[in-house]
Amino acid sequence: MEKEPLLMLPGPVPVPERVRLAMARQAINHRSAEFGAVYADCVRCLKPAFGTENDLVIISGSGTAGMEAAVANFGRTRKIACLVNGKFGERLYDISKRYGEPMLLKSEWGTPLPLDDLAASLEAGAEVVTLVHNETSTGIRNPAHEVGKLCRKHDALFIMDGVTSIGGDVVEADRWGVDVAIVGSQKCLAAPAGLAVVSLSDRAMERIADQRPYYLDLAAYRKNAAKDPMETPYTPAVPLFFALREAGLLIEEEGIEHRIMRHQRLAQSVRAAAEAWGLPLFPTTDALHGYSNTVTAIRMPEETTDSDLRGLVKRLGVVIAGGQDHLKGKIFRIGHMGAVGAPEVLATLGAIQAAMGRLGCEHSGDGVAAAAAHLA
Amino acid sequence: MEKEPLLMLPGPVPVPERVRLAMARQAINHRSAEFGAVYADCVRCLKPAFGTENDLVIISGSGTAGMEAAVANFGRTRKIACLVNGKFGERLYDISKRYGEPMLLKSEWGTPLPLDDLAASLEAGAEVVTLVHNETSTGIRNPAHEVGKLCRKHDALFIMDGVTSIGGDVVEADRWGVDVAIVGSQKCLAAPAGLAVVSLSDRAMERIADQRPYYLDLAAYRKNAAKDPMETPYTPAVPLFFALREAGLLIEEEGIEHRIMRHQRLAQSVRAAAEAWGLPLFPTTDALHGYSNTVTAIRMPEETTDSDLRGLVKRLGVVIAGGQDHLKGKIFRIGHMGAVGAPEVLATLGAIQAAMGRLGCEHSGDGVAAAAAHLA
Repeated sequence: MEKEPLLMLPGPVPVPERVRLAMARQAINHRSAEFGAVYADCVRCLKPAFGTENDLVIISGSGTAGMEAAVANFGRTRKIACLVNGKFGERLYDISKRYGEPMLLKSEWGTPLPLDDLAASLEAGAEVVTLVHNETSTGIRNPAHEVGKLCRKHDALFIMDGVTSIGGDVVEADRWGVDVAIVGSQKCLAAPAGLAVVSLSDRAMERIADQRPYYLDLAAYRKNAAKDPMETPYTPAVPLFFALREAGLLIEEEGIEHRIMRHQRLAQSVRAAAEAWGLPLFPTTDALHGYSNTVTAIRMPEETTDSDLRGLVKRLGVVIAGGQDHLKGKIFRIGHMGAVGAPEVLATLGAIQAAMGRLGCEHSGDGVAAAAAHLA
Repeated sequence: MEKEPLLMLPGPVPVPERVRLAMARQAINHRSAEFGAVYADCVRCLKPAFGTENDLVIISGSGTAGMEAAVANFGRTRKIACLVNGKFGERLYDISKRYGEPMLLKSEWGTPLPLDDLAASLEAGAEVVTLVHNETSTGIRNPAHEVGKLCRKHDALFIMDGVTSIGGDVVEADRWGVDVAIVGSQKCLAAPAGLAVVSLSDRAMERIADQRPYYLDLAAYRKNAAKDPMETPYTPAVPLFFALREAGLLIEEEGIEHRIMRHQRLAQSVRAAAEAWGLPLFPTTDALHGYSNTVTAIRMPEETTDSDLRGLVKRLGVVIAGGQDHLKGKIFRIGHMGAVGAPEVLATLGAIQAAMGRLGCEHSGDGVAAAAAHLA
C-alpha cells in the first residue's frame, strides 16, 4: 500500500499514532467510572486551550453540531446578530435562520468585520452575537476580544466558533467574555473528526431557551457532565473519546503556550514563503483583524489553475485545499494546525514551489528557504 | 492490564478486532473518492439488514440523533401517534413533544401495544406513527408488520426505531411498509458507538418538512449521499465509518440470514436457561408480540438484589444490565447481539448461575446445560 498522503488541510489533519491507536481497544460501557474518567481527562486537558474555567461538554457530532447546539439553545426567540466575513460565518447565519430572524452583519469574505454595525445592532436590542474567530475559508483572524467587549457592554451572550483556533492560537474565552465557545476535534487538537467540545458560562446557562432540541440539548449535556462519574445524555462515540483523551494529553505534555508558539512559527514561515514567491495573502487585515495562525490563504498564481497546481502538489504526496464557493480557483489554502511541524511545512512548501516551477509560474524568490529561516 | 470484561449488554457490545483495528489508520479527506467508497460499502452491506432498497444515509451521532432526525424531518407540524411500551418508546414520544403535540398510545412497559388505539388515532388523522421494533428496556419485540399495515391503510408515514433489531433479527422494511428505519452502530452491527444509519423511502422524502434542523437535516444527507463520490453534508466521524465498513463486510461475509439465525439460537438458549432456573421472562407476549431475539429480560430472583447479583457476575468478568427506571432491581437483562456466539453466552449464563448459587437463590435446574442443548 502506498503511504498515506500528507494532509495539510484546514482539517482534517494528520492524527498522531498514539491518538489513533487509542481507538483500537475494546468497547467499554459508557455508564461507568472508566468512561467518566476518560471524559474528565478530556475536559481537564482542553480547558487551557479554551482559556476558560467554565464547564466543557462534549457532543458526539461534528463542529457544525456544536455550532447548532449553541444557536438552538441560546438563540431561539432572541435577536441574534451574526458577524459574517466567510463561509463559516455564513453557516452560523444559516443555522440562526432556522431558529429565528437573525441580523446579518456582513463584509466581503476575508475583509474586516463591520464592528460599527455590531454596536448599532446591540443598541437595537440584539441579545446574542455569533462570531467565527478563525475563518478557515479566507485565512483571517477576527477580533474576538473586541466583540466580547461590545457584548459585555450590552449584556449580550457571545457565541464564538473557535473550531480552528482553539488549541492552535491564543484563545482567552473568560478574559474576552465568551459565553459559548466551540471546537472541533479534527482541527488544532489533532484528534479524529467526530466530536465537538463546547464551553458554557453560567451566564449562558441562566438564559438557556425553554424549548430546546433533544440530541443537542445543552442543559442535558451539562447535567450529565456534572454527575460522578461524568456521563453524556446519549450514547457517546466511545473510541473518539479515547482518541481525544490522548490528543488532550499530548497538548498537556507540550503545554498550551508552547503549542500556540509552534503554530505561530509555522504560520510565519508559510507567510514568509508566500512573500518570497511574490504571491499576496488573501485576507485584508487592519489593526484588529490579523492573519490566521492555523491556515494561510494565498492568491492563486495567474499562470496556473487550481486543478493543475493542487494536482501536481498531490502527486508529490501533499494535499492542500482550494478556495470554497466563489473563491474556487482564486486562492489556495495551507492548513498548518495540530501536530505538524517544520518537516511537514517544508515538504508542503517544497511541493508547491516545485509545482509552480513546472507550471511556469513566475515567482521571485525561494519560498522554502525563506520559510526555513523562520523554522530554524 | 486485566482483560477487558465481557460486555453482554443491550449495547455497547464487544467489537471484533478487525473492526477496531480499522480505526487505527491515518485520517483521510472526507471529500474524496476514497471516503465515498467507504460510505458506499457501508450502505451496500447494511441494506440487507434493513430489508430495503431505499436509500440509507449515515449520521455521525448516536441512535438518538437518528431518532430525532426522523421525527424532526417528518413529524413537525403533523399529528404523530407514538406507540409506547418501554423506555425507548417514551424517548420517541419525548422527542416528538419537542416538535409538536404527539398522541400517546401507551401500554405498561413490556406488555402488548394498544393497536386498537392506533387504528382509532389513524382514523382521527394521525399522519406519522413511531414504533420501537425491539424494546431493549423490556425485551419485547413489537409487531412492526402489523403497524406497517395500518399505516399503509391510512397513508401515514411509519418511523421505526430498529436500533436493536436491524442486523440481529428479521427486518423487512420494504415489505412491512417502513418509511424511515434507524439503527445504531453499537448494537447488532457490532461496530463502535457513534453512528446512526437511517433508511428513507421516497414517500417520506416527498413529505419532508419545510422547516428542518441543520445538523440533522435529512434532505441534506440524502442530497450529499447521491453525489459521486458519496459525501456527508458536514464532517463525518471518519474512523467510525472505517469501522462500520468492516462491520458491514463481516455481516456480508456471514450472510444476513445466517446472522439472524445465530441471534435466534442465542436468544432461545438464554430463554431455555431462564426456564431451567424457574425465573420468568419479563415481557407479556401475545400472538403479535414476541420475545426479543437480541436481549432477554428476566425477573430478578427474590432472594437477591440487583447490585449483589450483577456485582458477583461482574467479578466473574461479565457485565450484564439491570432494569431501567421503575424496573431497577426488578429485572436483569442479557444482551446477546452483534458478534457474540455460544462461548460468550455460556460464560454469561455460567457466571449468573454461579452467582445465584452463592447468593442462595433457589433455582430448580441447570440453565447452562439447558442453554447448551440449544447451542450445540
